[in-house]
Amino acid sequence: MGAHLVAARAAGLRSSAIRDLLALTASPGVLSLAGGLPASETLPADDVAAATAAVLAADPAALQYGQTEGEAVLRSWIAARELDGVDAGTVLVTHGSQQALHLLVHALVEPDDVVVVERPSYLGMLQALATSGAQVVDVAGDADGIDVDELAALLAAGLRPKLCYVAPTFQNPSGSVLPDDRRAVLGELAARYGFVVVDDDPYRELGFGPVPTRLRAFVPDDLAVTLGSFSKTLSPGLRVGWVHAPAWLVPVLTRLKQAADLHTGTLGQRVVAELVSRPGWLEDAVARRRTLYRRRATDAVVALRAHLPEVVVPEPRGGMFVWVDLGVDTDRLLAAGLDHGVAFVPGSAFDHRLRPSTFGRLCYATLDRPDLEEAARRLAGARASIADRCTETVPPNRRPRS
Amino acid sequence: MGAHLVAARAAGLRSSAIRDLLALTASPGVLSLAGGLPASETLPADDVAAATAAVLAADPAALQYGQTEGEAVLRSWIAARELDGVDAGTVLVTHGSQQALHLLVHALVEPDDVVVVERPSYLGMLQALATSGAQVVDVAGDADGIDVDELAALLAAGLRPKLCYVAPTFQNPSGSVLPDDRRAVLGELAARYGFVVVDDDPYRELGFGPVPTRLRAFVPDDLAVTLGSFSKTLSPGLRVGWVHAPAWLVPVLTRLKQAADLHTGTLGQRVVAELVSRPGWLEDAVARRRTLYRRRATDAVVALRAHLPEVVVPEPRGGMFVWVDLGVDTDRLLAAGLDHGVAFVPGSAFDHRLRPSTFGRLCYATLDRPDLEEAARRLAGARASIADRCTETVPPNRRPRS
Repeated sequence: MGAHLVAARAAGLRSSAIRDLLALTASPGVLSLAGGLPASETLPADDVAAATAAVLAADPAALQYGQTEGEAVLRSWIAARELDGVDAGTVLVTHGSQQALHLLVHALVEPDDVVVVERPSYLGMLQALATSGAQVVDVAGDADGIDVDELAALLAAGLRPKLCYVAPTFQNPSGSVLPDDRRAVLGELAARYGFVVVDDDPYRELGFGPVPTRLRAFVPDDLAVTLGSFSKTLSPGLRVGWVHAPAWLVPVLTRLKQAADLHTGTLGQRVVAELVSRPGWLEDAVARRRTLYRRRATDAVVALRAHLPEVVVPEPRGGMFVWVDLGVDTDRLLAAGLDHGVAFVPGSAFDHRLRPSTFGRLCYATLDRPDLEEAARRLAGARASIADRCTETVPPNRRPRS
Repeated sequence: MGAHLVAARAAGLRSSAIRDLLALTASPGVLSLAGGLPASETLPADDVAAATAAVLAADPAALQYGQTEGEAVLRSWIAARELDGVDAGTVLVTHGSQQALHLLVHALVEPDDVVVVERPSYLGMLQALATSGAQVVDVAGDADGIDVDELAALLAAGLRPKLCYVAPTFQNPSGSVLPDDRRAVLGELAARYGFVVVDDDPYRELGFGPVPTRLRAFVPDDLAVTLGSFSKTLSPGLRVGWVHAPAWLVPVLTRLKQAADLHTGTLGQRVVAELVSRPGWLEDAVARRRTLYRRRATDAVVALRAHLPEVVVPEPRGGMFVWVDLGVDTDRLLAAGLDHGVAFVPGSAFDHRLRPSTFGRLCYATLDRPDLEEAARRLAGARASIADRCTETVPPNRRPRS
């Protein structure tokens, strides 16, 4: 009855059709490649319990209100260990990276401001942008990330973005890695045209080979924003992320954060600080995940290539996802997949206009080889059922399954 | 250098002058009546440590991503115990009550929409409104809360608010309690004029006498929003609050929450659920706080009346604050108070236009009798120093201190 009271911009939030479908991925019997969750067996339950006890025994004020900017001990650790010793005053702890994205959008974007994103882009950023009134411009990406030549051409033609959002290191969903030369071009473009560059970097520790230089090394200090998170290295359920921003932006983000939720949970921050401060603890934790994910990435690629010989399955270089052109509309493939007992995230979810896509994001992080093989088999079955029913969506070069 | 990139609305956030002053209240030697923090000795550190261990031993997925709406076990408890058995689907867990306020403002308020608040009002709501573009209309409050006759007159004269925000039970800062007859009038006005009523109710369990009926009993179901929190009964540092909203509003709040921070920390929610589900645990915890706060309220009133015989000090009925007309501009009194080693929050902080006020919010919850007495003595000294320097701010009926 009161629905007419909803603010127009809030009502215009992205369709939840995919969200509704993805709710079904938790059904028993569905093998989910949709997640994006860390592997449950890597979650350090015992260590968190012990660290919680230690933190609370040392100081019950871990249950008290805290500062909006975050706990000093954690900000100092992040500044020293993740950001080459920047001033800890330029680091804010956030309630996960998602909150940092949300705060950045509110700090910088006015209605009709241009925001550049990659195509595909992280859906959480697209959601954060959805209520901002931003004019979202997506620039094509490939296995090497955003096409900086296309961006340069758009800028030369008059595009004036307020910010450019990229996830240049094992991107979600594509797994792409922006090489140093493209990073340098992006930094030069930011300097020339005066826009903020946001480097969203939660998968950095999960690389299977060399990890590139952080983007901020190539961007002027006053335009470089870096986001990080403990969700992929420690625990997403603690909701502890961070943002490093130029000095002019920090007070704005702080005031917005204060209005949004006062501060990030004190206990969770201190538990994270306690664990990452133990010599070698974080290194061991991420090494175990890297090893596990690398093995599962290989298993997933082998299984997908075996069951879907007609599609090209790239080799992931890090992170949790393989991004595959499945040759059919993947919104429809997801619906068919659920009938076949397999789930993934269709490419449309990573497009700010929700345009249909033939790509799908397959998360290999949470399944072992037999389940990955079965998931690939089911995905092939679902794909065949789509292709049988609707051949016009199938590319001409599709070979029949053996 | 990049400051011109800040969005106008974000730049227009409330002055941080008071915030800067209040940062000084943590200085050694300052007795702070400014807080708003629960008494540290009431924080259940051992119980939280034990509950954390139990939760993690039962299910390491307490460290995993969770649902945007919140953990099912906690939503069910809130629906059953706080809301007389409403559908748990209408309860969302938020990252503290502050986040619920922020989400409500974004869900409902378009630029230039009218929002009615009390005068004085909770500063966190004023901060949440500050970037919304809302036209904030404050209606006078007294010891019995918002003046519903003044509100009725404004509505009759054509005011058309989108929502009315009140904290009708031991309000922060005034401690006022809205009696049932005013609650009934407010509900009738909401029904007649079609605006949402937000009942922000974190202090409900901290009453020193009878606790009134929840406001939602008087408001049409489709216009009633209720906020609650575990910050004042269990721990603010866990950041677990909740909002109960009409069915038409829940999906909007959920999508906004997803864009804001994905979900509230899983572990913290499960720890809260574990503790409040233990028979008698919460009752005992709040009973201890009530007893402590009641004793301190009495001590504070006695001390203030002794040292400031010229001001009228009301008797708190619950909550953590006494709201006193100190007869001088309390922005200036705070500055003088810091020189004298005492802090409080000046009334201007609770005014959406930050207008100077002669009122101050004094939190008695965290100090024992000797400190309350010393704080009152210092406050009187600070007040005398102001009055001596600038007699025109002193009301004519001021009696000299004995």
